[in-house]
Amino acid sequence: MRRIGNQTFIFDKPPFIIGASAVAGPKEAKGNFGDYFDLNLKDDAFGEKSYEKAECKMQKTAMESAVEKARLTFEDIDAILSGDISNQITASSFAARGHNSMYLGLYGACATFGEAAILGGMLICGGFMNRVLCAASSHFSSAERQYRYPLELGNQRPPSSQWTVTAAGAIVLSVNGDGPRLTGGTVGKIVDMGVTDANNMGAAMAPAACECIYAHFKETGRAPDYYDLILTGDLGKFGHSLLLRLLKEKGVDMPESFNDCGAMIYKDGQEAFQGGSGAGCCGAVFSSFIYKQMSAGRLGRVLIVPTGALLSKTSAEQGESIPGIAHAFSVENP
Amino acid sequence: MRRIGNQTFIFDKPPFIIGASAVAGPKEAKGNFGDYFDLNLKDDAFGEKSYEKAECKMQKTAMESAVEKARLTFEDIDAILSGDISNQITASSFAARGHNSMYLGLYGACATFGEAAILGGMLICGGFMNRVLCAASSHFSSAERQYRYPLELGNQRPPSSQWTVTAAGAIVLSVNGDGPRLTGGTVGKIVDMGVTDANNMGAAMAPAACECIYAHFKETGRAPDYYDLILTGDLGKFGHSLLLRLLKEKGVDMPESFNDCGAMIYKDGQEAFQGGSGAGCCGAVFSSFIYKQMSAGRLGRVLIVPTGALLSKTSAEQGESIPGIAHAFSVENP
Repeated sequence: MRRIGNQTFIFDKPPFIIGASAVAGPKEAKGNFGDYFDLNLKDDAFGEKSYEKAECKMQKTAMESAVEKARLTFEDIDAILSGDISNQITASSFAARGHNSMYLGLYGACATFGEAAILGGMLICGGFMNRVLCAASSHFSSAERQYRYPLELGNQRPPSSQWTVTAAGAIVLSVNGDGPRLTGGTVGKIVDMGVTDANNMGAAMAPAACECIYAHFKETGRAPDYYDLILTGDLGKFGHSLLLRLLKEKGVDMPESFNDCGAMIYKDGQEAFQGGSGAGCCGAVFSSFIYKQMSAGRLGRVLIVPTGALLSKTSAEQGESIPGIAHAFSVENP
Repeated sequence: MRRIGNQTFIFDKPPFIIGASAVAGPKEAKGNFGDYFDLNLKDDAFGEKSYEKAECKMQKTAMESAVEKARLTFEDIDAILSGDISNQITASSFAARGHNSMYLGLYGACATFGEAAILGGMLICGGFMNRVLCAASSHFSSAERQYRYPLELGNQRPPSSQWTVTAAGAIVLSVNGDGPRLTGGTVGKIVDMGVTDANNMGAAMAPAACECIYAHFKETGRAPDYYDLILTGDLGKFGHSLLLRLLKEKGVDMPESFNDCGAMIYKDGQEAFQGGSGAGCCGAVFSSFIYKQMSAGRLGRVLIVPTGALLSKTSAEQGESIPGIAHAFSVENP
């Protein structure tokens, strides 16, 4: 059994992350990680006729770049595990089309990148695959008109809202290689505290992030200072402060460095309200800034906790509350 | 390595399928498997205020019934792997809410049940989990108004169209137990032959089914007569005849018994055109009729090949072609 406790897995032969790449939109390029993304788009339509096609092209580009950086071709990739937040994850399945790899589509909302990493790690560590490509993406314009209102309406955004990140991230997991290793993870449970406001997803997701992080420390026996850096996915500033309070109530004091990819991705004054959201947010931040810091030896151990709000436009309109989920994965330098 | 060839896996310690259950709508109850479903609804709203809520309740009911039949409680279930064809798979994540199991959401369109079974088998066989609950569902009324037109419009249906099945299926995989065992599977690749007609999904999916079935026989070295029964998911009658031709062109002659759950689920005269479709179609047929036939010893070895059309309403409206996918899983009596 490779599981410790109820939800946590420690890989006995941790897969290597041998390639990573991120593609980001113009607004994200002007944010805090613009210098780290592998490709910054000047035009968020990426030369395509629709935002949906642009998102697909972004994810495809990030995947191709990650495979190239791993010094592989797609013939070396056993399977693609990917997802996004568009209806029926078409950005992902269309991006994977044309490649000769097995395809496993995932949906974990903005926690998808974590779900892909952990499942990919299990498939390699379990002896089923040698090399897996994990990817996730989101696009402000394709998401906004799908979940909320037509962009042309120019609806006012409430202060609690977040800005869907236009970005894609991809990593190549391999049974052999060198560099940072995916050492394990904690698979999340669905937590729903009854939040119904689709413009306050930080509040909907924070309890699930708390459950996952608390389980991770309890089951591994690690303290937060085991990691050099712990980042959640896209709680935003309000969600992050709420999570800090929830963890404190459970007796977990988090270090100063604990932060959230969504809260970090934009600069002050970029009018992103509580910060970034979307499946591409932590996917792109991990696949660029974090991976580069780890490869350069400036970070030794990180815990990434992608967070997802499991709503659809229909469920929100039918008054359903928003179930949250979070999956944590640990990456460590040898 | 537990993989043979490129896409096929043989489980060295095959998980047992220790419980299975299917819930079906009124039209499906009048079809060929009405006597085998565990619960036949008299009203397809299932006492709920929306069809989306009804689909969620159907999947929840099928899961609870499968767990009960396995003589377990949800506390014994390590993880739920589930998906459906509604936007953001809300039927599945809402149905899994409230349970204390890990949750991994999947999206493989109508091939989701196969994706869940194979991934669930890998997680158990790889030593990560002991018991996994796999589920998939679809609902005519929630799917139709999402993918096509408001039901109230009463649009005429073309002869090539299929009828989305109102049903949910769930199985419990376990590291120990008795009964039929999930012995392996072939994970599919995306195949897109350029079909753009969202009312002819059989044609869009048949090439992917052909690729998966051909790979399964080639990589296992088995002939079609290794199995007592081989069923695809929801190609419908036209898609099934197309698949037969495609396989014949590749030199694979299928036995008389080879059929398709979608083509089989309704009786002649039920006005379902080419037959049933939807993620719940083969999920429910496997979890009821097939599982009961196997448990009674009337079938020894079966190969189930759920088939999926990876489109969304938006991708169809934007003129994109429909990528197809299929995953095959084998179930054998000891």
